[in-house]
Amino acid sequence: MVATAAETVPHLTTALSGPLNIIESTILDYQARIESWFRSEWRKTPVPLYASVDLRNAGYKIAPIDTNLFPGGFNNLNPAFEPLCIQAVQSALERLDRPVDRVVIVPENHTRNEPYLENLAVLQRMFEKAGFETRIGSLIPGLEKEMLIELDSGSRIRLEPLRRRDSGLYINDFRPDLLVLNNDLSSGIPDFLQEADQLVIPPVNLGWSDRSKTVHFNFYRDVAQEFAALLDIDPWFIDPMFRNCGEVDFMKRAGESCLSRNVESLLKAIQKKYDEYGVSHEPFAMIKADSGTYGMGVMSVNSPEAVHDLNRKQRTKMATIKEGQKVTKAIIQEGVYTNETWGSPGTVAEPVVYLIDQNVVGGFYRVHPQRATNENLNSPGMYFERLAFDECCISPDKEQSPDAHPNRFYTYGVIARLALLAAARETKSL
Amino acid sequence: MVATAAETVPHLTTALSGPLNIIESTILDYQARIESWFRSEWRKTPVPLYASVDLRNAGYKIAPIDTNLFPGGFNNLNPAFEPLCIQAVQSALERLDRPVDRVVIVPENHTRNEPYLENLAVLQRMFEKAGFETRIGSLIPGLEKEMLIELDSGSRIRLEPLRRRDSGLYINDFRPDLLVLNNDLSSGIPDFLQEADQLVIPPVNLGWSDRSKTVHFNFYRDVAQEFAALLDIDPWFIDPMFRNCGEVDFMKRAGESCLSRNVESLLKAIQKKYDEYGVSHEPFAMIKADSGTYGMGVMSVNSPEAVHDLNRKQRTKMATIKEGQKVTKAIIQEGVYTNETWGSPGTVAEPVVYLIDQNVVGGFYRVHPQRATNENLNSPGMYFERLAFDECCISPDKEQSPDAHPNRFYTYGVIARLALLAAARETKSL
Repeated sequence: MVATAAETVPHLTTALSGPLNIIESTILDYQARIESWFRSEWRKTPVPLYASVDLRNAGYKIAPIDTNLFPGGFNNLNPAFEPLCIQAVQSALERLDRPVDRVVIVPENHTRNEPYLENLAVLQRMFEKAGFETRIGSLIPGLEKEMLIELDSGSRIRLEPLRRRDSGLYINDFRPDLLVLNNDLSSGIPDFLQEADQLVIPPVNLGWSDRSKTVHFNFYRDVAQEFAALLDIDPWFIDPMFRNCGEVDFMKRAGESCLSRNVESLLKAIQKKYDEYGVSHEPFAMIKADSGTYGMGVMSVNSPEAVHDLNRKQRTKMATIKEGQKVTKAIIQEGVYTNETWGSPGTVAEPVVYLIDQNVVGGFYRVHPQRATNENLNSPGMYFERLAFDECCISPDKEQSPDAHPNRFYTYGVIARLALLAAARETKSL
Repeated sequence: MVATAAETVPHLTTALSGPLNIIESTILDYQARIESWFRSEWRKTPVPLYASVDLRNAGYKIAPIDTNLFPGGFNNLNPAFEPLCIQAVQSALERLDRPVDRVVIVPENHTRNEPYLENLAVLQRMFEKAGFETRIGSLIPGLEKEMLIELDSGSRIRLEPLRRRDSGLYINDFRPDLLVLNNDLSSGIPDFLQEADQLVIPPVNLGWSDRSKTVHFNFYRDVAQEFAALLDIDPWFIDPMFRNCGEVDFMKRAGESCLSRNVESLLKAIQKKYDEYGVSHEPFAMIKADSGTYGMGVMSVNSPEAVHDLNRKQRTKMATIKEGQKVTKAIIQEGVYTNETWGSPGTVAEPVVYLIDQNVVGGFYRVHPQRATNENLNSPGMYFERLAFDECCISPDKEQSPDAHPNRFYTYGVIARLALLAAARETKSL
């Protein structure tokens, strides 16, 4: 057979080999009701500027496992999604309480992380194409003048020092109306960002210096319960159970008993649900730094004892996360198998959905050839497979079966928006 | 040479063979200023739900020649634009002063106009995918029960009688929150649509029974002047001049002297502009029924005498328009040559831009192999060429030349939005 052009487009058939899911067909049946509910929720709770949501689809369960409010990775979206992103940016900024013409994006301090810088270039272009004068204001300590970086894609990034003058933020004489944070503030909120004249979105206290996964998944639990009641399904189908340990020190082995006790109770609770629904898998739990990101400080365990059996290397890996921050709190989250594979059998994948304003604007699969279905895929060796445009998650196609791509992606978009709503409530509660 | 896949995608190179335009490069240079201006205008004046704008690009001039507030032809958009349309529909309905879950689309009374019915199927699907329960409520006199129509595309249309009960509008027991007019009400506003409990958008008095091109182009003239001042260009570059005759009867030859006098004065004014800018074309004017649509009641003249020389057939064609309405008023509009051709030399084309809410969501070329560059292309024998998605008019690409496709289409999107703004002010003035 001769290869045709169509075959060069990523095919997700193999990534979507799971059993036809009751959740998916229910979500399709109730589309109008679901969209109406979302509309009324967005009227009550303003939505964050943007987010990316990592999902796991186990077939019997689809759940968000991480909600990033300072998403990188826009460079991994299909460029065909760009008009959708631009329109969503326009709509988000239009809704702000003041007119915005000039924007400064405040990025992470990376200067050598090429994929991140490509993300930044895409973000800047997106705001520019949406019709805003857009510059990049760096927080890099000691950056005195602009730094130009040429990227492999041919794009060019200009990092300029962001400075405070009286109560205003500036790049030289450029005074933005709005600062868009793309820095998760893992190491804390810089003083000079506090109480500035200009609007900063998302707000600085959504950074990981203040935020915790436990709080987020608490809000998510409420959202999942309301949504499940709307559809008359068990909220467990869409909600990962979790426990929490408030004082841990992996190096000093402090808090170990809290961790193992919670792992035990969580594994039991999962087993109970597995028994209820005839799931024959072995339960597992993910221990995660409660304020961690970049997939750091994450491990998979399938017994309480595993917590005690960590070797020094494993402890070190769990103890510190991004920018050398120490881990002092942990969330123990129900492990959700991913039943999605990509390409060759056994190459596991998980969908990542991107949102701007209240809109799903695209997504991709995170694929990891060296990981198992019960492991963290956000780790070195992963790569990304873009979703093709006409398979984007914005709308279902009722003329196709519930597990057809547009329909499965619609379901992913719904679950991602539930996580977005949890984040919206989290933001409102600050 | 072997044909490749890429060649099956419409190429607009030949349609874009015009001279590089000062207007286009100015618009590109001032993108941020233009978008900022549009944002502030949309804050002042709410935008109509949707519109399609016919443009003419003469190279030395780009102007809207018709603004349709009840657009058909959504079926001619590239299906890849659908997510953009859906997002724009969500955003438009979100901005209304009341929550909307149920929608009724009120279409034209056509039952055999297959392209129109395909448009209707696309519109319905768009609202459904945007998450609204959507039905089609027909105004067809005497329609007692639902009418099912199978379309060549495989879509199926269900027309149901729209009825008034007390102050509410219904399809049987289905009570919509919103009625979306896709009927231009050429024959007048049905009584039972007046002062209903539910919101009707666009408002009924924007139908052609009340609306006139003269009023629209009066508003457009103001918009063009403000925009031209912003860019420091001659407003004539984007504004077709026009005159108006208030009492004409083509069959009785009434108002002929008004027409010829105005044609004469308009042709002189055009010649003056042509002289100023060194344009060597022959001026021409379009005489149009002031409330006409569907390309009916339109003719091209290049001398005042032409008005007197009309034969009986030509008079008959000018005298009545859609749904047998009599023409009593006429607009005499500056003829704008189209310098765009499609495919074989001499096959003229004009762009049609579609807008939902304040967003450009797509467009196509109206192509007519039997027409000249100074004739009405909206006539039997025309066909449509879709714009490819990545060439959509939503954003410019500053790394390319001003006449590269995304940039020329961006310019078209800007001019179309100027016409939309004129329509917004027209709506506000009702």
